[in-house]
Amino acid sequence: MRIPQPYLLFLGDVTDPLAAKTAKGILHWRPQNCSGQFRLTPETVSLGLPDLSLEEAKQQGAETLVIGTANAGGMIPQAWLATLQEALELGYNIASGMHQRLSSFPAINHAANIRQCCLYDVRHVDQPLAIGTGIPRPGKRLLTVGTDCSVGKMYTSLALEAEMNRQGLKTRFCATGQTGILISGKGISVDAVVADFISGAAEAISPAFTDHDWDVIEGQGSVLNPAFAGVSLGLLHGSQPDALVLCHEVGRQHVRHVPHMNIPSIEATLQANLVAARLTNPAACFVGIALNTAAMTEAEAMTLCQQWEQDYQLPVTDPIRFGVASIVEKLHSI
Amino acid sequence: MRIPQPYLLFLGDVTDPLAAKTAKGILHWRPQNCSGQFRLTPETVSLGLPDLSLEEAKQQGAETLVIGTANAGGMIPQAWLATLQEALELGYNIASGMHQRLSSFPAINHAANIRQCCLYDVRHVDQPLAIGTGIPRPGKRLLTVGTDCSVGKMYTSLALEAEMNRQGLKTRFCATGQTGILISGKGISVDAVVADFISGAAEAISPAFTDHDWDVIEGQGSVLNPAFAGVSLGLLHGSQPDALVLCHEVGRQHVRHVPHMNIPSIEATLQANLVAARLTNPAACFVGIALNTAAMTEAEAMTLCQQWEQDYQLPVTDPIRFGVASIVEKLHSI
Repeated sequence: MRIPQPYLLFLGDVTDPLAAKTAKGILHWRPQNCSGQFRLTPETVSLGLPDLSLEEAKQQGAETLVIGTANAGGMIPQAWLATLQEALELGYNIASGMHQRLSSFPAINHAANIRQCCLYDVRHVDQPLAIGTGIPRPGKRLLTVGTDCSVGKMYTSLALEAEMNRQGLKTRFCATGQTGILISGKGISVDAVVADFISGAAEAISPAFTDHDWDVIEGQGSVLNPAFAGVSLGLLHGSQPDALVLCHEVGRQHVRHVPHMNIPSIEATLQANLVAARLTNPAACFVGIALNTAAMTEAEAMTLCQQWEQDYQLPVTDPIRFGVASIVEKLHSI
Repeated sequence: MRIPQPYLLFLGDVTDPLAAKTAKGILHWRPQNCSGQFRLTPETVSLGLPDLSLEEAKQQGAETLVIGTANAGGMIPQAWLATLQEALELGYNIASGMHQRLSSFPAINHAANIRQCCLYDVRHVDQPLAIGTGIPRPGKRLLTVGTDCSVGKMYTSLALEAEMNRQGLKTRFCATGQTGILISGKGISVDAVVADFISGAAEAISPAFTDHDWDVIEGQGSVLNPAFAGVSLGLLHGSQPDALVLCHEVGRQHVRHVPHMNIPSIEATLQANLVAARLTNPAACFVGIALNTAAMTEAEAMTLCQQWEQDYQLPVTDPIRFGVASIVEKLHSI
């Protein structure tokens, strides 16, 4: 799956800034791929991009209308269908991270067929996959892992990609979740594949390469989260990472979706991932810890990072506050 | 999913005895649920059951026609469609472990709708699932795990169910693969669920219970097989086993589908499963090792079992040659 860019970011009639997280992520990490925003009402959240009509953005070269919002049920509002259909009639592709498929609407499907436009339902996986082989393949790979879900693995991965390129390591981000796929325009939602194909999907997401230095693979879940560990383990085995970065949210008490279970310790998480990773890459090692320190002051966060650098003998940073240069410096020797 | 029994076992026109493995498994473990066999030609493999026509078996109470054969591609032969349609017209349900769905044939689908019969494509999972909760639930559970795929986990699980009931422990077999589902008439193919729902599926396969003593859950794959470990880990977390039995094929050199990787050691497999299982059930422990010793003489097998009993301080047996009584005796104290 490769979504044509640049994008016109569609914000619908969403007024909750949190609901526009996907569009914000795309703009933050790939501003060069965003032609503008398209809002249905003046009250709709703004990203600060130029407000363009479908026609204006098309004239400026936009290729794909991206639904940049999320809602609890993952349903596409009926009120948006006329706009989506109009976009298809103008020749746009449409990409969506919603649970409900674009192709589930006959009128949308029909319009896409007529104009030979593509519908990208990035939360779903329709392409044929093979089972994992475990065979080592050329190219160096870094995988982000976590003490839990939603601790900053995607942000850290994208920050690493940017900093690695800045430090002269030619690096590509490999998306494994819907927001990452919309940001980078490609990838596979590994938690949406049939269970037999998890590690095979990871092998497909980052195939053999010799034309650049590193792939940074976006991690998912945690091998110690009992709801999602299967996804995380298959991703770990299929990624065959040379380098691992541990992501952690400071202050989180309980495993997400599992309120009776405490967050595992850093030591236990490092150990569990290292043991599992070495099944397919005996050279796997940790190169850093990325913290989300939003719950602390910046001074407290700095102290914590310094202390943990001593404790774990690894670069420790908050990617948002302090960047990830210290982690990337460690990669030059791998 | 609960498949109405008794079954009429359909053998089609299959002449290779190995291709009738599923039907043989059903007959071996649930003879009381098999009305007879239905063969299209005199050359077709026989199970030694009475040959019944569709009408005869229906008169004797058969509820479901089970496709008891397998082939490499998992496709339903065109030559069988007329028979399947006739069965539906007589009021049979149909169950199949083939990859190709029964419902993918419009004529089959139509006939099933008219007679309100059910089509059970047990290799596919269509029911809605929830993500795993990791919450402990009432009832004691045993899970079979392995050094690899296809080392006898289903056979061992069914042998344990039978022996546990014989020793007075009220026990139910919980199927997680297509043959096990056809044998027991219920279950979920865990390797066919969407990756996010592996542990949730395991929780659904063996929900809370207080009306019997044990559930024996059929294991899948191996946490140390890089192609399928995600499935195995999610199943382990969702099963929350109190007791684990390790299955191993003596003499297998390489991980199945992964020819460059040696079979892991018994010690490593015990350790990896125990560490993972204790995330959701800190009391998890191994209660035995079940060997497939087909590659040895019976005397060699007996010597090996005795030696390993010393080495691992666990009951060690070949379920086919020596039964599983020694393992079940250990369960009375759990």
